[in-house]
Amino acid sequence: MKNLRINLNKRFQLWGLMFLMFLMPMAYASGGNSKIPEYFLWIAVLLLLAKTSSFIEKIKQPAVLGELVMGVLLGNLILVGFGWFEPMKHDPIILFLAELGVVILLFQIGLESYIEEMKKVGLQALLVACVGVISPFTLGYVAGMWLMPGLDPNAYLFLGATLTATSVGITGRVFKDLNKLQTREAQIVLGAAVIDDVMGLIILAVVSAIVVTGAVTVMPTFQLVENFPYVIPDPSISWITLKAVIFLVGALVLGSLFSPLVNRLFSMIHSGHEMKFSVAIILCLLFAYLAHLAGLAPIVGAFAAGLMLEPVHFKVFDNPEINKNMQVAMVNADKNTRDKVNKELEKYNDQHLDRLVAPLGDFLVPLFFIVTGMQVNLATLSDPKIVGIALVITVIAFIGKLAAGLVAGPGVNKWIIGWGMAPRGEVGLIFAMIGKQLGVISDELFSVVIIMVILTTLLTPPILNYLLRKQEAH
Amino acid sequence: MKNLRINLNKRFQLWGLMFLMFLMPMAYASGGNSKIPEYFLWIAVLLLLAKTSSFIEKIKQPAVLGELVMGVLLGNLILVGFGWFEPMKHDPIILFLAELGVVILLFQIGLESYIEEMKKVGLQALLVACVGVISPFTLGYVAGMWLMPGLDPNAYLFLGATLTATSVGITGRVFKDLNKLQTREAQIVLGAAVIDDVMGLIILAVVSAIVVTGAVTVMPTFQLVENFPYVIPDPSISWITLKAVIFLVGALVLGSLFSPLVNRLFSMIHSGHEMKFSVAIILCLLFAYLAHLAGLAPIVGAFAAGLMLEPVHFKVFDNPEINKNMQVAMVNADKNTRDKVNKELEKYNDQHLDRLVAPLGDFLVPLFFIVTGMQVNLATLSDPKIVGIALVITVIAFIGKLAAGLVAGPGVNKWIIGWGMAPRGEVGLIFAMIGKQLGVISDELFSVVIIMVILTTLLTPPILNYLLRKQEAH
Repeated sequence: MKNLRINLNKRFQLWGLMFLMFLMPMAYASGGNSKIPEYFLWIAVLLLLAKTSSFIEKIKQPAVLGELVMGVLLGNLILVGFGWFEPMKHDPIILFLAELGVVILLFQIGLESYIEEMKKVGLQALLVACVGVISPFTLGYVAGMWLMPGLDPNAYLFLGATLTATSVGITGRVFKDLNKLQTREAQIVLGAAVIDDVMGLIILAVVSAIVVTGAVTVMPTFQLVENFPYVIPDPSISWITLKAVIFLVGALVLGSLFSPLVNRLFSMIHSGHEMKFSVAIILCLLFAYLAHLAGLAPIVGAFAAGLMLEPVHFKVFDNPEINKNMQVAMVNADKNTRDKVNKELEKYNDQHLDRLVAPLGDFLVPLFFIVTGMQVNLATLSDPKIVGIALVITVIAFIGKLAAGLVAGPGVNKWIIGWGMAPRGEVGLIFAMIGKQLGVISDELFSVVIIMVILTTLLTPPILNYLLRKQEAH
Repeated sequence: MKNLRINLNKRFQLWGLMFLMFLMPMAYASGGNSKIPEYFLWIAVLLLLAKTSSFIEKIKQPAVLGELVMGVLLGNLILVGFGWFEPMKHDPIILFLAELGVVILLFQIGLESYIEEMKKVGLQALLVACVGVISPFTLGYVAGMWLMPGLDPNAYLFLGATLTATSVGITGRVFKDLNKLQTREAQIVLGAAVIDDVMGLIILAVVSAIVVTGAVTVMPTFQLVENFPYVIPDPSISWITLKAVIFLVGALVLGSLFSPLVNRLFSMIHSGHEMKFSVAIILCLLFAYLAHLAGLAPIVGAFAAGLMLEPVHFKVFDNPEINKNMQVAMVNADKNTRDKVNKELEKYNDQHLDRLVAPLGDFLVPLFFIVTGMQVNLATLSDPKIVGIALVITVIAFIGKLAAGLVAGPGVNKWIIGWGMAPRGEVGLIFAMIGKQLGVISDELFSVVIIMVILTTLLTPPILNYLLRKQEAH
């Protein structure tokens, strides 16, 4: 009976696969007599394709690259006459979910970043971060003027800005995949990437302000801009920087004083993972909105909320009972086994907040990257000039970050740090998206940035892999 | 230093609280010069209020009741001149998130329901379910005609339909809260509630078809209805029922043959919780859409997807290493401690899919209930006649389900089963919402249904508590 069932299973699985293959055209043919169930199909198809694209991890590439490339493919199917994905590009609900996805992603990155980690690597990370922002920004600005003369001067500013931010997600993941997270080089790169993010977001605010208002003034003017998601009410650089710093420092100081109270208040009502998660999401969204009120991008607020929430504040919710029982049970076991079990127990008890937020991220973040990829117009790539420019900009992007590695100080492998800083990712793409929304970044320049992001993300893992193995061999 | 920090914390927490209190008016005053960050604030505020309302669990009431009551309050703040929540009632993005919330909820309910459980309690549960659907439907229909003569005849059909579905979520939770999930009574109620859900959803399909097309035919006609979320393309009862049964049975048969393949296929690409979760969500949304294609409500599909996915299919992803190590470590421990640890271990290994889906539910489901509550127009309650009708309908709702308890057969406490079937919840509210969207259920009738849902949900826990304690005393 069991054998029969297995055989039946195998036979029916083929039917199942065929069923799936006929599903999409069927859905396409049925047309939309209602909108909401259509969204369910759209999201399911986008997630399915995003997950399918993650085969890229089998060849040791980060999943984000697969999602991006998949998005580029889907967004350009119209070139071969398949327009099913076209309406998604500008659909308000899909764009909202994508936007919520970036907010959740930056919240996750914030959760993974600790102020303590930054302090430990201290001056070295700060130095690497500063050079890692200044050098690619300057190089990008100059190279842009040289390669593409006659553009809106703000376009060069945006190009420089997109080259500044190291992808803390991708960088961290590369080191993690290679089991090198505990090296001093990894610590410096992670610390610098976090500082880079903050600096990059301040640069974004300043550059956006310059673009929106056309000029930079010293005195505040309090002029509001209508109907724009990333509003910069005030074009004074000093004021914007001050506001950004006040917001970030204020969020961290207020937040870290504030979150124990919120926690205790909520634990009085109800305890458990549900509440833990909800408090986190509420703070994330609230800070995203407050950042917007302060004239910053919502993602800055989400990042600050993530930085502010450290797992230690949530320990209240954990149940020590299981821990105690297991220690009693293991009293006569040998040390080796006990150590193994304790390591697993730690994982069990350490129900990190980021693990709770992960499913929401798994649901929404791929939508952001796939929708971002869909904005790439491959038709612009038929111009060999643009491809050439993209390659030069990519070389510039590498040189800018390798220069940062050179100031890392003694006792570390400067090349590993430099290449570790190289991957641009989510933040660079966010910059490019905002630039596109602002009308500063043309289709061509957007394609250049996307190629740069893809190449820095794609080339870094094999190079880092080579450098780390070479270091090990010594 | 540490003491100083704690004192500082306590002082600043007061400031923090004041800061929060000033936040909402500030946000209100700032107005909306951009839409997306505004949604972040809306969602944060709705979730915060939903979580605040969960203090209701302290007085042993289900959280859903708190969210509903909070929604009723927010939706009627306009009566005292506070209109901040008004635009949310009809906002497409908020309504989409709420709709996605119900889909996720029914998926969760499906995940919690097992076909095996239904089989075990077998005939008894089926009998209870049938009487539990027929008796309140008939009573509701007749009472409606008697209490509110002259309405659209379809309104009575809908009133009857809203009285049929037992809330499997609320029922399960009540038994769980009272630690009585393993009793035979609880098993029958849970089984019957699951069957009830399926029957109720078929009734919904049939009733909606009658409302949309104005008549019921025997032969299929394939007429499509434009721009309506719950489209019933064909008014033939036999065909609708057949389609519903074909969809459900087909989904279960195809699904259970299908999901091992999907699992194996995906595990080849990448393994872990992320993939597990994504596969589940993709199937949930895909089945929601397929149900819509089959002429059913998307929630039916989500429920079927949940029923179809049983944890056993996901065991592939679990790591047996920790289990083995712990058994070795515990070899010399006493039996009592070992049992305790094994129970905890089971929880650890049994990373049920519903635990992964839970955060998404925690995020979206409260939005559905709070938005549903917001649709209640308290002004209609100023009419003592409506309040009177609501009370009679509530009594009818109890009698209808108590009658179901009477057929439960020998060896069980009939009253516990009857009262266990009494709480209406999400499904009843979904019926009412659909009825309202169809224009069949007036504001008054909607208020009647909401009062009935609130009362059946509110009165059941104390009564069940009393009956279960009385049974224990014997």
